[in-house]
Amino acid sequence: MENGNECEGAGNKMHSQATTTAGKVIRCKAAVAYGPGQPMVVEDILVDPPKAMEVRVKILYTSICHSDLSAWRGENEAQRVYPRIFGHEASGLIESVGEGVSELKSGDHVVPIFNGECGKCAYCKSEKTNLCQRFRVDPFKSVMTSDGTTRFSTQDGKPVYHFLNTSTFTEYTVLDSACVVAVDSQAPLEKMSLLSCGVSTGLGAVWNTANVQAESTVAVFGLGAVGLAVVEGARARGASKIIGVDINPDKRTKGQAIGITDFINPNDLDKPVHQEIRAMTGGGVHYSFESAGNLEVLREAFLSTHDGWGLTVVLGIHPSPRLLPLHPMELFDGRRIVGSVFGDFKGKTQLPAFAKQCMSGEVKLDEFITHELPFNNINEAFQLLIDGKSLRCLLHL
Amino acid sequence: MENGNECEGAGNKMHSQATTTAGKVIRCKAAVAYGPGQPMVVEDILVDPPKAMEVRVKILYTSICHSDLSAWRGENEAQRVYPRIFGHEASGLIESVGEGVSELKSGDHVVPIFNGECGKCAYCKSEKTNLCQRFRVDPFKSVMTSDGTTRFSTQDGKPVYHFLNTSTFTEYTVLDSACVVAVDSQAPLEKMSLLSCGVSTGLGAVWNTANVQAESTVAVFGLGAVGLAVVEGARARGASKIIGVDINPDKRTKGQAIGITDFINPNDLDKPVHQEIRAMTGGGVHYSFESAGNLEVLREAFLSTHDGWGLTVVLGIHPSPRLLPLHPMELFDGRRIVGSVFGDFKGKTQLPAFAKQCMSGEVKLDEFITHELPFNNINEAFQLLIDGKSLRCLLHL
Ligand SMILES: [Zn+2]
Ligand SMILES: [Zn+2]
Ligand SMILES: [Zn+2]
Ligand SMILES: [Zn+2]
Repeated sequence: MENGNECEGAGNKMHSQATTTAGKVIRCKAAVAYGPGQPMVVEDILVDPPKAMEVRVKILYTSICHSDLSAWRGENEAQRVYPRIFGHEASGLIESVGEGVSELKSGDHVVPIFNGECGKCAYCKSEKTNLCQRFRVDPFKSVMTSDGTTRFSTQDGKPVYHFLNTSTFTEYTVLDSACVVAVDSQAPLEKMSLLSCGVSTGLGAVWNTANVQAESTVAVFGLGAVGLAVVEGARARGASKIIGVDINPDKRTKGQAIGITDFINPNDLDKPVHQEIRAMTGGGVHYSFESAGNLEVLREAFLSTHDGWGLTVVLGIHPSPRLLPLHPMELFDGRRIVGSVFGDFKGKTQLPAFAKQCMSGEVKLDEFITHELPFNNINEAFQLLIDGKSLRCLLHL
Repeated sequence: MENGNECEGAGNKMHSQATTTAGKVIRCKAAVAYGPGQPMVVEDILVDPPKAMEVRVKILYTSICHSDLSAWRGENEAQRVYPRIFGHEASGLIESVGEGVSELKSGDHVVPIFNGECGKCAYCKSEKTNLCQRFRVDPFKSVMTSDGTTRFSTQDGKPVYHFLNTSTFTEYTVLDSACVVAVDSQAPLEKMSLLSCGVSTGLGAVWNTANVQAESTVAVFGLGAVGLAVVEGARARGASKIIGVDINPDKRTKGQAIGITDFINPNDLDKPVHQEIRAMTGGGVHYSFESAGNLEVLREAFLSTHDGWGLTVVLGIHPSPRLLPLHPMELFDGRRIVGSVFGDFKGKTQLPAFAKQCMSGEVKLDEFITHELPFNNINEAFQLLIDGKSLRCLLHL
């Protein structure tokens, strides 16, 4: 594990390497997926130099998120494109930048963001959304936005497809500069990987989407990495009660280590969870967060908030065709429900400050990395997540 | 028709009458409903004096809203209680007040509100809701909140039930003081009747719920009284585009008289309404309002807003058991949807100022009263609304 200073050293090393690799094709190791659910093959690929407004990044750490799992499994047929490089949580160093990139440079410590920020479109200029017109999260995109081609190829010259604006399961990747955030060179890069997705999604939902205030009451449904990041965000904001809900009893201890004040295992109850939560909180919590990806759970989360002012933030991915299990008249009880993408963070604008809050200890990330493995063991890391054994397994490249 | 001065005169007359009727049972005319959908019978009833914290009001004007229609029809079996006095849009004068009522007095010009404001409960003290704990809108309530009995009875002493905290289809009614708002004595009482429900619901949805700003774009689905009040609210706020949507072609002219800039009749289109609206507005309106009570329309309203920042406000009553036709993943496009009750107005706190905005001409109410009839013709007035011929038919008592 590197500390900040060693990263800095790596940055310098990188910088000198850049002088030798910039503008050239790089041959490096990547984990290539060849079909739905098939073990990834760690093999050499070729990585083109960045084109205009793109950057090439040397990935140092990457971790696996549920979106990688579901795309790798090919759960949505329209997303099946192979060979492909998955991965969107990572941290690394800029190897070289393409023409026109001025705010990033070789050696910068960076975090990729799947939900980019071009800074110029009507969406980026609006205070109401973090969905960039060109670089918003798009699970159907498999090529670079600028020219519709790939920067990856197999050794025999066949294209290898991109994923989610990022593709981080590789020693080198190419991203649009709108999808790369430079963080403080002293920030611990191994933890910065978490900011690429899960932790930002959960914390941001609390801070930006819901804007939870001190003394608020909060319920979190599903204590995976995103749900636990919600807990951390609520703790950091001074919530008076943070109720964790999960059917996995092991989550009680993990949740308490981060900040839950109460734990509910729905399987231990003889009534619906929302009734229990309403009884515990004088009518319901101020805020509930759904990070389970299950519609029955979503409904319980909705009903767990107080009428008149309760807000439910949907974070879970709901691939089933089933619609929202809410009746329109239920909206008249004053409960609200909203979705949140990437925690409503405008990545390039806000993540550098967020990284500093992590460095200062205002936000604690220690509990989120539960495993570490060499990059070669990526399929093992996938299995840890599938089995529910890991929150985040950090792969070292 | 009275003007403000004549109302004042009536107030004085009232005041002297109060000295003779206060504390006594009043015999007066009321429109009594004896069964679902049966023509109401205008007959003499007995009205008890107000109990503690209640007031007795002499109704001068009352109008009919769709909630009256659906309750009269008994569409929801659980709401069927007879004999009963419907009505919740009205204006009048306080005849007498019960023990403990200090902020209202005999002779005050008042408007009943079905969504009361006690001023003391946690909801009333919260800035986030206008749903009072004790006096919020409740279509299942048929008795006074204070003691669970009625203040109305037939001449042979049988109880006549209340409706929606108000019951205005009667010369005299008794209400909790939390459900009565005093307005300026110069305010034109015949128009103040509109503030009891439809106009406040629509305008408030624009001003309070959505907080529409100047230059915003707005789409209004369903141009009944509530929808047209949305149009008036958007016009008053300086919206740059106000698109009215209705399958009744006659609504174009009416909408234009109030402020729509564009009219869409979905039956004239060969594509979904939301596609047309997106094309007209560079991707969608800032705000859409659904006042049609139809789930397909609600979905079109939702999709008509711009992704990233669109807000749909649900105003329509949706009695069918069908759930919201929205997929949870659609929330991730940044469109939001909320319900709004009584335009999110806190009635007692905010309606007096709203009444003054109507008096000053900042809000125009001229177009909403399309018919006027004597109270005896109440069944005719119902038919006008059923046939879609009236927006509001004002009954003179
Ligand atoms: Zn992710
Ligand atoms: Zn942008
Ligand atoms: Zn109250
Ligand atoms: Zn009404």
